[in-house]
Amino acid sequence: MGQTRHGMAMVGGAAGSFIGPVHQLGAKLGAQVDLVAGVFSADRDRSLAAAVSYGVAAERCYPDTATMFAAEAARDDGIDILAIATPNHLHLPVAIEAITAGVHIISDKPATATLAEAEILREALAAGRSRYALTYTYSGYPMVREARARVAAGAIGTVRKIVVTYAQGWLARPLEASGNARAAWRTDPARSGPGGCSADIGVHAFHLAEYVTGLRVAAMLPDARPLVPGRTLDDDCNALLHLENGAGGVLISSQVAFGERNALSFQLYGDGGALHWTIDAPDRLRLVRGDGSVALLLPTSPDLLVRGRFAPTLGQGIIMPFAEIYRDFVDAIDGDGGRIDGVLPGIEAGLRGVRFFESIATGTGWIDLL
Amino acid sequence: MGQTRHGMAMVGGAAGSFIGPVHQLGAKLGAQVDLVAGVFSADRDRSLAAAVSYGVAAERCYPDTATMFAAEAARDDGIDILAIATPNHLHLPVAIEAITAGVHIISDKPATATLAEAEILREALAAGRSRYALTYTYSGYPMVREARARVAAGAIGTVRKIVVTYAQGWLARPLEASGNARAAWRTDPARSGPGGCSADIGVHAFHLAEYVTGLRVAAMLPDARPLVPGRTLDDDCNALLHLENGAGGVLISSQVAFGERNALSFQLYGDGGALHWTIDAPDRLRLVRGDGSVALLLPTSPDLLVRGRFAPTLGQGIIMPFAEIYRDFVDAIDGDGGRIDGVLPGIEAGLRGVRFFESIATGTGWIDLL
Amino acid sequence: MGQTRHGMAMVGGAAGSFIGPVHQLGAKLGAQVDLVAGVFSADRDRSLAAAVSYGVAAERCYPDTATMFAAEAARDDGIDILAIATPNHLHLPVAIEAITAGVHIISDKPATATLAEAEILREALAAGRSRYALTYTYSGYPMVREARARVAAGAIGTVRKIVVTYAQGWLARPLEASGNARAAWRTDPARSGPGGCSADIGVHAFHLAEYVTGLRVAAMLPDARPLVPGRTLDDDCNALLHLENGAGGVLISSQVAFGERNALSFQLYGDGGALHWTIDAPDRLRLVRGDGSVALLLPTSPDLLVRGRFAPTLGQGIIMPFAEIYRDFVDAIDGDGGRIDGVLPGIEAGLRGVRFFESIATGTGWIDLL
Amino acid sequence: MGQTRHGMAMVGGAAGSFIGPVHQLGAKLGAQVDLVAGVFSADRDRSLAAAVSYGVAAERCYPDTATMFAAEAARDDGIDILAIATPNHLHLPVAIEAITAGVHIISDKPATATLAEAEILREALAAGRSRYALTYTYSGYPMVREARARVAAGAIGTVRKIVVTYAQGWLARPLEASGNARAAWRTDPARSGPGGCSADIGVHAFHLAEYVTGLRVAAMLPDARPLVPGRTLDDDCNALLHLENGAGGVLISSQVAFGERNALSFQLYGDGGALHWTIDAPDRLRLVRGDGSVALLLPTSPDLLVRGRFAPTLGQGIIMPFAEIYRDFVDAIDGDGGRIDGVLPGIEAGLRGVRFFESIATGTGWIDLL
Repeated sequence: MGQTRHGMAMVGGAAGSFIGPVHQLGAKLGAQVDLVAGVFSADRDRSLAAAVSYGVAAERCYPDTATMFAAEAARDDGIDILAIATPNHLHLPVAIEAITAGVHIISDKPATATLAEAEILREALAAGRSRYALTYTYSGYPMVREARARVAAGAIGTVRKIVVTYAQGWLARPLEASGNARAAWRTDPARSGPGGCSADIGVHAFHLAEYVTGLRVAAMLPDARPLVPGRTLDDDCNALLHLENGAGGVLISSQVAFGERNALSFQLYGDGGALHWTIDAPDRLRLVRGDGSVALLLPTSPDLLVRGRFAPTLGQGIIMPFAEIYRDFVDAIDGDGGRIDGVLPGIEAGLRGVRFFESIATGTGWIDLL
Repeated sequence: MGQTRHGMAMVGGAAGSFIGPVHQLGAKLGAQVDLVAGVFSADRDRSLAAAVSYGVAAERCYPDTATMFAAEAARDDGIDILAIATPNHLHLPVAIEAITAGVHIISDKPATATLAEAEILREALAAGRSRYALTYTYSGYPMVREARARVAAGAIGTVRKIVVTYAQGWLARPLEASGNARAAWRTDPARSGPGGCSADIGVHAFHLAEYVTGLRVAAMLPDARPLVPGRTLDDDCNALLHLENGAGGVLISSQVAFGERNALSFQLYGDGGALHWTIDAPDRLRLVRGDGSVALLLPTSPDLLVRGRFAPTLGQGIIMPFAEIYRDFVDAIDGDGGRIDGVLPGIEAGLRGVRFFESIATGTGWIDLL
Repeated sequence: MGQTRHGMAMVGGAAGSFIGPVHQLGAKLGAQVDLVAGVFSADRDRSLAAAVSYGVAAERCYPDTATMFAAEAARDDGIDILAIATPNHLHLPVAIEAITAGVHIISDKPATATLAEAEILREALAAGRSRYALTYTYSGYPMVREARARVAAGAIGTVRKIVVTYAQGWLARPLEASGNARAAWRTDPARSGPGGCSADIGVHAFHLAEYVTGLRVAAMLPDARPLVPGRTLDDDCNALLHLENGAGGVLISSQVAFGERNALSFQLYGDGGALHWTIDAPDRLRLVRGDGSVALLLPTSPDLLVRGRFAPTLGQGIIMPFAEIYRDFVDAIDGDGGRIDGVLPGIEAGLRGVRFFESIATGTGWIDLL
Repeated sequence: MGQTRHGMAMVGGAAGSFIGPVHQLGAKLGAQVDLVAGVFSADRDRSLAAAVSYGVAAERCYPDTATMFAAEAARDDGIDILAIATPNHLHLPVAIEAITAGVHIISDKPATATLAEAEILREALAAGRSRYALTYTYSGYPMVREARARVAAGAIGTVRKIVVTYAQGWLARPLEASGNARAAWRTDPARSGPGGCSADIGVHAFHLAEYVTGLRVAAMLPDARPLVPGRTLDDDCNALLHLENGAGGVLISSQVAFGERNALSFQLYGDGGALHWTIDAPDRLRLVRGDGSVALLLPTSPDLLVRGRFAPTLGQGIIMPFAEIYRDFVDAIDGDGGRIDGVLPGIEAGLRGVRFFESIATGTGWIDLL
């Protein structure tokens, strides 16, 4: 494996995948890591087609993960990073293989499909030497990190309330009934696990609440239901929150929010200020200070606590935050791993997320999350 | 009493009142109704000072409501409308006096301080001949009415979810401890009744949810608490909602939302479209149609279902919606009252509102509201 | 005439007038001045109908201005303020009559239809004792005044450039051909004078540029043309500007900006900061400071230099700025007139405006305006 | 040279270059074209460092362009595309070398530093077989292309007016005096040619005006000046425009717009509608239709004329439009070149741009541009 230069494989990410190319570009832009191998699909033809599209050599497009880890370990320039971009139920077995092979893991959320699996993964990571990071995308936005740093620095005083919203509309119609592959696995308990909207995007909102406040959700009262007839998994999930310091909160997530593409935002109120962020203007953070004055924090602001490592004009989309996350991840691999489960979400953040949606599927009333 | 020309008295609205001048201007602009009499404060000097500021003749500034109703009844040009702008606990007794005097009533919300009082008021109205309207301000915004009319016309299909938010920040600090009169009565159970934020602004959000959807909230799970130390009444109130057709919802209200002045908005999703409105741009309504196209409805739009009766450039603030409400109210007085509890909130809407905040104060878990 | 209580007449403002009711409400709200007399139209029936709508007694609705000034002078409670809301060509003769009668004047812009007339008016004002103010509406917005005060205080250093835009779309179609009265007189040189769009709204933009910068436009290169076939007056007017300190600028105005209702904004750049304002969010001023930090100035900001005298929630439309202007005007009447042609536009600002559009109609190339 | 797989070299783009990585990522994402060779800087050490950062093999990082073209021509997998990312004065000589070598050219704007050079380039292209495209970035935004297509389809009727604005603030301070390399060459006539702001970003605005309207600017009255003391090249450039169909226009560009990072927008008015776009929300186009209704066109809109080829969530920054441009360019190389100087700017667009800023530097009064 390389010391200064890393090679990456991907599992999942064949044609139709949204996130596969994001991994490739984010790794390249953020950390000069090239995607060089993979098992892009269980369907061999689709996998080979994806390899062509990614510019991965055919001989490094493997029929299965076992073959891949063995072949790559035998190469001088073999991979040392695995990006996991599969449906949720495969996250654990693939991660375990990577740990066994000594390969570092960067995984799409959720960490695993169930809490029991997540605990197995945590133990395996503790016993192995693979670094592990979760691509909670928004945590790569410099202004989300700025918000987190400002809260930690006391800029809004004691947190009193957070409202976090994540709304999509693409499942407002029963696409799974008309052959849409993404819709099909997301609405299928066998492949998604017990959570629908809650596990797919609610978990992002939940993590965002804990990430920016630096506080855990102590208790939650969820209302997660399928609103489109015929579904068994929730496609809409709202919850009242109590944070561990007594603060309140509201979490709103939906995949039946007709007309919304990807509307993520938070409003955070303290006893000495407030912070507002929305993905519509991701490089802007609105800070209400203790005296009532309002500052717009921008990449050009002179007093940022966190500065994005890439020119903001390069993009406001998902590639830049992935690049930030990959940069942190490779820094953690090359260094001592210190930022993991700090600024960079790791297995602890992953466990919180899985607990969030599994609790929704199984709990009633106010659910204890501590 | 006048037939074509009306005269109005006000109870409450002395110096420092925000809403008093709004009543005067809204009545004048909307319905050419002049404020000609009043008991503006229990403090006689403050009341007289207010009369000067309103341009009300000193002899029609009365020491108490009993004197006022008697004196005005004796005049040829006596009042036939009473605007109630007092703290909540006085709404019922003043309204009863007006009914007895045969004077029409336009009242600030909530209708009364308690549900028992509201039921008394309903009976009294049924037995008398006074028209009664509630100034749920937002219901006077033409674009809120447009949203209501579009939903009724099926523009977004079956309602699936509503998110309604009302955030203020003026009580983020314990102003009641430093002599602020408005803060003092709003945080005092003796004068506000059992609801704090829930009764002051949460009730607006609740009514808005029912008003635009045309559906009642069937059940509600609230989380209303004082977040500022030392208070007994809630200053922050959130709730999960189930509408009577099975739709879901989230209500967010707060008076400790540091930095917010008056942030009211809703997002409404159906199975065939969506509607978005915010008071930040009150004469704009965003309509997502069934085919995914998005229209911005503006006062200049060719196909509005509801058209504001006043030039939109005149103002986007609170005076215009008051003018709309006063216009409807005077139309109801001069006509058959048909719009009351239709487009114009009346006692039925008032009862729903009081039930909302009283239920919060007394109920637990999912509370039945049907 | 009253000392502490003023009475106002209006010339113009009959049915269909947009600005008439704004004068009435602005005077009432801002300065407790009642509209009590008027000649609302040359058509006697229309004038009487307007009087009813304004609540003005029929006996004080006069057949002509000469009768009005005579009759009012004879009353103990006669008017001491005249609001001029007529087409432009009547501004001068009516103002002269008011000066002769010793009545104060608050006039719609432009001051007069021609520069020669404006100079006559200036002389008449100097010789008389009437106070005179122009309702350049935007100059009543507290945040525009804040911008002016910040520039004066050096908040953005030396002014380098201003871009000011005023776009309307209501004349994008030849409404004058289909009987629209407002369109008819605005597009008619006999009633509007030599300027079309330039005199109607370009002049607002021009004054705004000088008002907020505190600098005169030294030279201007205009491009004013009718873009709708059949017109002789310009309906679109753009200009390059040089300010007297060497700064540059661009003025954009149009009445054929399809879809725009009333889009007024400025961007002002100095060598140490910038200020941005738009009428879409009129109570917000964006300040870029010398260190690159960005502040949003709001009515709740702790460090405002200028504070609006009316609750911002009352309205963001045109009534509030009129109320501010009326408040200043009545203060000037009751006091020493000090704010006139300072914060409150007077005859000097009026002359600049008339010079602006008359120069456009007559000049070529870079036109000297000093 | 490859048939289905292309290899690209870059000239320029060493450390500190903003645009170099954008070329690499845009080519990769848009057309699966890999950057495999280059002369990234005249400074050999900086060039080699850049090669490492791009992942280009050291042996393909050449000391000069002559060596590069010779060596690459000798390889089986040699380059067939050259990206030009140098200062302006090198655009012509490098392009001529590429044409001689039969390599296709994708160049940063302006095409050349002077109009005489641009004409030489046009002739050389006509005589050779290299395809040529200019990366006018905004022309790669799907919604800008949508605007262009809508205008062509008559959606807003006959064009009457365009306002196009491009504002940056990074040169508001004399950075060139303190060693900033980008500022140094941009403010130096020897390296930038006769245009400063006009050639750097004004030209973008100018091309945007012609691109979306499908009309040439017939005449222009510019005002381009250095506003920061000590400069000889303009850092602020505004112009009045007349389009060839008689429409009017205003072009505003500035690099001393304190606080602006990259504010590009246009408002386009026709006699039957309007179109508005701003880079702040680049995947949104506001369409005012002939009946006054307003549509927001979004990537999810059902009736788009132009559809972006990449998931909009991937990014709203500069990488996506570069990817669109690279996709078109490679399509043109692989096909018949048909989109060049249609949707994809080519040498004709380049000539217009150079003529724009050279005319500003040399002309006076209204300048003929036909």
